[in-house]
Amino acid sequence: MAYSIPILEQLIDEFRKMPSVGTKSAERMAFYVLGLSDEEVKSLTDAISGVHEKVRQCAICRNLTEDEVCPICQSDTRDKTTICVVESPRDVLAFERTHEYNGLYHVLHGAISPMNSVGPDDLTIKELLARLQDDTVNEVIMATNPTVEGEATAMYIGRLLKPLGIKVTRLAYGVPVGADLEYADEVTLTRALTGRQMI
Amino acid sequence: MAYSIPILEQLIDEFRKMPSVGTKSAERMAFYVLGLSDEEVKSLTDAISGVHEKVRQCAICRNLTEDEVCPICQSDTRDKTTICVVESPRDVLAFERTHEYNGLYHVLHGAISPMNSVGPDDLTIKELLARLQDDTVNEVIMATNPTVEGEATAMYIGRLLKPLGIKVTRLAYGVPVGADLEYADEVTLTRALTGRQMI
Repeated sequence: MAYSIPILEQLIDEFRKMPSVGTKSAERMAFYVLGLSDEEVKSLTDAISGVHEKVRQCAICRNLTEDEVCPICQSDTRDKTTICVVESPRDVLAFERTHEYNGLYHVLHGAISPMNSVGPDDLTIKELLARLQDDTVNEVIMATNPTVEGEATAMYIGRLLKPLGIKVTRLAYGVPVGADLEYADEVTLTRALTGRQMI
Repeated sequence: MAYSIPILEQLIDEFRKMPSVGTKSAERMAFYVLGLSDEEVKSLTDAISGVHEKVRQCAICRNLTEDEVCPICQSDTRDKTTICVVESPRDVLAFERTHEYNGLYHVLHGAISPMNSVGPDDLTIKELLARLQDDTVNEVIMATNPTVEGEATAMYIGRLLKPLGIKVTRLAYGVPVGADLEYADEVTLTRALTGRQMI
């Protein structure tokens, strides 16, 4: 390019590295930063450094937290007999938004994927097994993603837990609420049919 | 929400303030920041503060630059007889990407818009008039946006410049290259017809 502002280009590059940010969005964001006041810039950079310094994994469920043990594991009102196993901390946020689940979580930080050379040892499966030793937990809900990797991970952990006499369940498959049936894929529709229930 | 990580929520809020960033994108970006190394976080925050501290307006054309006078105004190879008047620094980048324009620019930093109480005095029109005093410039291209505000600004400045004996031109209107004619709006099509040229 004949003309450019190196330091601005650098910021655009930084933003472009972020997920779901393209060149145009990165440019728009960089120009937004340009228009901020001193305090606003400080609050933005502080938030970025702060998250990086202070957020860590909960010693029990491996979810993200600012404390040694996360608020969910610490809570007295949560049902400690059920653990919902998810792939990522974002899944925990998704479940918490439903306000329907009151048990504990366990975050695997990934899913088994030989293609990306992620094996069972790269996930927090050992930590999950350790949590099941004292017989408080009687149900483990496998809430990994409905993808090939998530499915394989659910099957793998399911087989590990069966001998322990713990109930292992899997999220229901079906058509998403509010969706248009004509756009549903065959596999989802087949699963929705198979799993049909009395009304 | 029953559970949240305050410092992470804060970062998500910061990102959500940015243009073209929704809640989901902001979350994705915040989790991306979480996964960065120490150096990567430093490089990101440095880029943000750096842009804010170092970038300022060129003393001549009011475009953004790190120096007192921007590289375009400083350049010996640019045609100093033509000034392209644009609304924002991003428009300069757009023109530079064409590699077709070799003149100078003038950035207005907005357009006349009574609705948003932006009048001629809020733009850098005085600075533009000052640049036209020494008779080097013989053409001013009005390249404000093809919107009501951009049009009004072009007309306003055009009328100011006419008495100075300077040629004032406006970008051509027509159908955008690569577009589908059936989706073109009536006004654009009418303009494309009126402005038709021999091939």
